Amino acid sequence: MPDHFADRLAAAVTESASPVCVGLDPTLDRIAQALNVSLEQAAASPEAAADSIWRFNQRILEAVRPYCAVVKPQSAFYERWGPPGVEALQRTIQLSRQMGLICLLDAKRNDIASTAAAYAQAYLGDGPLSADALTVNPYLGADGIDPFLQEARGRNKGIFALVKTSNPSSTQIQDQALQDGRLLYEHVGDLVEEWGRASIGGCGYSDVGAVVGATFPGELAALRERMPHTWFLIPGYGSQGGTASDVVAALDRRGLGAVVNSSRGIIYAWTPEAAQTDFAGAAANAAREMRDAIVAAREARDR
Amino acid sequence: MPDHFADRLAAAVTESASPVCVGLDPTLDRIAQALNVSLEQAAASPEAAADSIWRFNQRILEAVRPYCAVVKPQSAFYERWGPPGVEALQRTIQLSRQMGLICLLDAKRNDIASTAAAYAQAYLGDGPLSADALTVNPYLGADGIDPFLQEARGRNKGIFALVKTSNPSSTQIQDQALQDGRLLYEHVGDLVEEWGRASIGGCGYSDVGAVVGATFPGELAALRERMPHTWFLIPGYGSQGGTASDVVAALDRRGLGAVVNSSRGIIYAWTPEAAQTDFAGAAANAAREMRDAIVAAREARDR
Repeated sequence: MPDHFADRLAAAVTESASPVCVGLDPTLDRIAQALNVSLEQAAASPEAAADSIWRFNQRILEAVRPYCAVVKPQSAFYERWGPPGVEALQRTIQLSRQMGLICLLDAKRNDIASTAAAYAQAYLGDGPLSADALTVNPYLGADGIDPFLQEARGRNKGIFALVKTSNPSSTQIQDQALQDGRLLYEHVGDLVEEWGRASIGGCGYSDVGAVVGATFPGELAALRERMPHTWFLIPGYGSQGGTASDVVAALDRRGLGAVVNSSRGIIYAWTPEAAQTDFAGAAANAAREMRDAIVAAREARDR
Repeated sequence: MPDHFADRLAAAVTESASPVCVGLDPTLDRIAQALNVSLEQAAASPEAAADSIWRFNQRILEAVRPYCAVVKPQSAFYERWGPPGVEALQRTIQLSRQMGLICLLDAKRNDIASTAAAYAQAYLGDGPLSADALTVNPYLGADGIDPFLQEARGRNKGIFALVKTSNPSSTQIQDQALQDGRLLYEHVGDLVEEWGRASIGGCGYSDVGAVVGATFPGELAALRERMPHTWFLIPGYGSQGGTASDVVAALDRRGLGAVVNSSRGIIYAWTPEAAQTDFAGAAANAAREMRDAIVAAREARDR
């Protein structure tokens, strides 16, 4: 296994032949259905909720393992249940890494100085919640990035900074036109590319990734050109409307350069009548189909 | 006690005659010194660390209570220790609220849709980690604000969105000049003022506050003019360099409109030789002096 984060990610994507990232966004209403318990029972206490989440995640991880290289727990859905929820997150991070998956924690943390260093220690350090990479919000500038990078680089881990998010109102701030002619998210993209320049792996990408939504395919393709050394994490596939042809521009001819996330489209892929018997199988199928669709779109482009 | 968050905050500031917000940023090296234990002992396990933090915070809260209306735990320093750390945060939030303090959780959360709603439930809902207000990062636009506002407004709580942060590199993104002549943070300030317009309390301020650093006093004064209905949370006082005369422009003639945070300057105010005997007393003195300095500066201005 290579050391540099970007190369580890490249190796994992190559080995699995899949750019799919499975988002682990556990919401109790759906999980109760899958586990065949009542919502009242599942939500009886934070401990009960956390237990359901953990049981659900174990089945999902086992099911999707063959079809993806990366998983992305969304921290909010665990924090929602307080300390027991954070324990379920801890177990999920640890299990996914033990399984050889790259665990990218989606927590969009942001702060400066010793505060940012504390977040970095928590999620990229050597503690129990430590993942392989962490999403961060760049609004505070380099002071809000450097402490994360310092921790990440000491441990061959990575960060993914928000550049152009998948939601409609991302335009409100991110698409503001600057006096120098760029849009704000282009400026942020340029910063991200620059922050990564100090640590580019053998694969040609750096340890500072970018979050770029699938729902703005024109912007995605333009950012790919603009940020040639930056891994993209692409949300917005599936239930938010992004398709394989929308995201393929982010992938290079080796199939590297981006991981494409789907959460609800995979983990809640079951049909209502089949939930209790086969929610994990439905997730596996959905992950496989997503992988096949993206790989086919890329091969068609490169033929 | 009034219902509306802005009015509750106004009442608390008026009653305490203090705009001081005490930042609860527990770092183990300093806490061990205060509690007269070795750093090795305090950091022996996440449970030991969380226990030291909780013991320290109880003493600090009791000491500063007469001199402030608001406390601000910084979530990173608790998350740093995993689930036990989050338990210490839970106890700190609950105790401060039981003491009648306004508890403003500094976590700078940001996301969209059901994810943002999960964060909002966690920190503004009815769960164990629920505070009176939460800091949020506005980079995702209204989609990243509305779910927080929805939860906050149902419970008479509030949010504080980052506008112009106190760190040097806040200029890198926040000070970008837009084609319409505004700087980006002015645009974000205008959005924050607009988001609050739907819920303005009797005191004249809304439930959508703004984080504006003390370290850019010119910008602070200009934003005060620009955002007349917005409570400011002002970091950067004391150890980051902000002074009473830097922040006074943010306060109206009633002494309302802003709370000024100091963390290290208060909770670590002891002198080395006095740490174990009187760290809480030193914190009380520092909070009182800060309150007196800001109130004196405001009274001098308004005379």
